[in-house]
Amino acid sequence: MEYASKILEKTVDEISMLPGIGRKTALRLALHLIRRGPESSLRLSEALVEMADKLMHCRICSNISDTEICSICANPGRDDRLICVVEDIRDVIAIESTGQFKGRYHVLGGLISPLDGIGPSQLTIDDLVERLKDSEGHELLFALGATVEGDSTAFFIFRKLQGMKVRMTAISRGIGVGDQLEYADEVTLARSIKHRIPFEDSLKR
Amino acid sequence: MEYASKILEKTVDEISMLPGIGRKTALRLALHLIRRGPESSLRLSEALVEMADKLMHCRICSNISDTEICSICANPGRDDRLICVVEDIRDVIAIESTGQFKGRYHVLGGLISPLDGIGPSQLTIDDLVERLKDSEGHELLFALGATVEGDSTAFFIFRKLQGMKVRMTAISRGIGVGDQLEYADEVTLARSIKHRIPFEDSLKR
Repeated sequence: MEYASKILEKTVDEISMLPGIGRKTALRLALHLIRRGPESSLRLSEALVEMADKLMHCRICSNISDTEICSICANPGRDDRLICVVEDIRDVIAIESTGQFKGRYHVLGGLISPLDGIGPSQLTIDDLVERLKDSEGHELLFALGATVEGDSTAFFIFRKLQGMKVRMTAISRGIGVGDQLEYADEVTLARSIKHRIPFEDSLKR
Repeated sequence: MEYASKILEKTVDEISMLPGIGRKTALRLALHLIRRGPESSLRLSEALVEMADKLMHCRICSNISDTEICSICANPGRDDRLICVVEDIRDVIAIESTGQFKGRYHVLGGLISPLDGIGPSQLTIDDLVERLKDSEGHELLFALGATVEGDSTAFFIFRKLQGMKVRMTAISRGIGVGDQLEYADEVTLARSIKHRIPFEDSLKR
C-alpha cells in the first residue's frame, strides 16, 4: 500500500503489530482517531505511556498491579490459605466477576507449551513453590483452561509440590449452565458423568 | 469487569473507544503490549502523538498529508485536468495501488448521509467548486462507493457544477474481474448489460 503520509504510515505500522489487526483495520482505526480530533489520539497515547512506565507485577501473586502488592493480596479480608492458580489477569477478572471466590490468586503468566517455546522456567512456578514453602493446610485450586497446555501445566505443578502440605483441587468440568445435553461433546459429557455430584448439591446456585 | 489495576483499566477504556473493539478485545491488546515490554507501548504512543501533532489536510485536495501540499498534488508529473473525487484516503490508497490513474484527487472526507447527520457543508464540496472555478476542459471522475450515499453525493456535486466547463464521468460498475455471473446480483448484472462496451475493449487489461 502506498500512503501519501509517512506519519500515517508509521502509525498504521505500529497498530498493525497488535494481534488480530491487519493493515486495513489498522488504517481504519487510525482514520477514526484522526476524524475524532487530536485529543483522542493524545489520550490513548498517555494511557499507553502510563502503562509502559508505571505498571508492575504484584510481588506476591505476579498479577498486573499499580502497586508492589496488588489490591487482592493486600486485602486482609481474603482467605490466605486458598490460592487459585490461573494463566493470566483475564482469568482473575473472570473469576472475580462471579463474586464466589474469596481466596487469593497466583498468576502463572502463561501455560507450558513446548510448541510455542514456553517452558516452566518462563512461568512463575518457582515463585509459587517459594510461596507455599512453609504452608500448613493450604489449598491450591487449579483454574486453568481445559486444554492440553492447561492440563500439562497443572500436572507439572502437582508433581513439583508432591510432599508439601498442600491440598490440590481443580475447578469442575462439565456441562455449562444453560447448555443442552445434545450439544455437549462426548468427552465433556463423559467427565460430567464420572464426576457426578450429590443431587442436593446440584440445586445450589 | 473488575480490574486489579486502574492503569490497565484506563488503557482498556481508551482502546475500547476504537470502532469494532470491545472491552474484551481491548484487554487482550493491552495484555499483548504489556507482554511485549514497555518499548512497544512507547513506540505506539509516539506514533499517536506525532499523528495528533503533525498530520494535516492538503490545502488543495484535502487528503491527509505530512505537508501543506500533499505529495500527489505537488507532483508535476500528474495530470492537472483530471480530478478523481473520492470519499477518503483509503480510496486514494486503493486507486494508487492500481497504478492506472495519473490525475489528481479531491478527498470529500465523507459522503452525504442525512441519517448520520452528515450534510454537504461538512464535506469539502465548496473547496472542490472553488478549485474548478476557472476550469477549462477539466474532467471530474467520481469514484465513490456504489451505495445510496455515494450516488446522492455524486448527484449533489453534479448539480452544483452545472454550467461549469467540467466534463463529469464515473467509474464503471459491473461484474468484478474473476467473478462468476451466477453470483452477481440482478442490479449489477442489469447495469453491466446496459453499459456494455465494445468487445475489443473488454480484452484490454
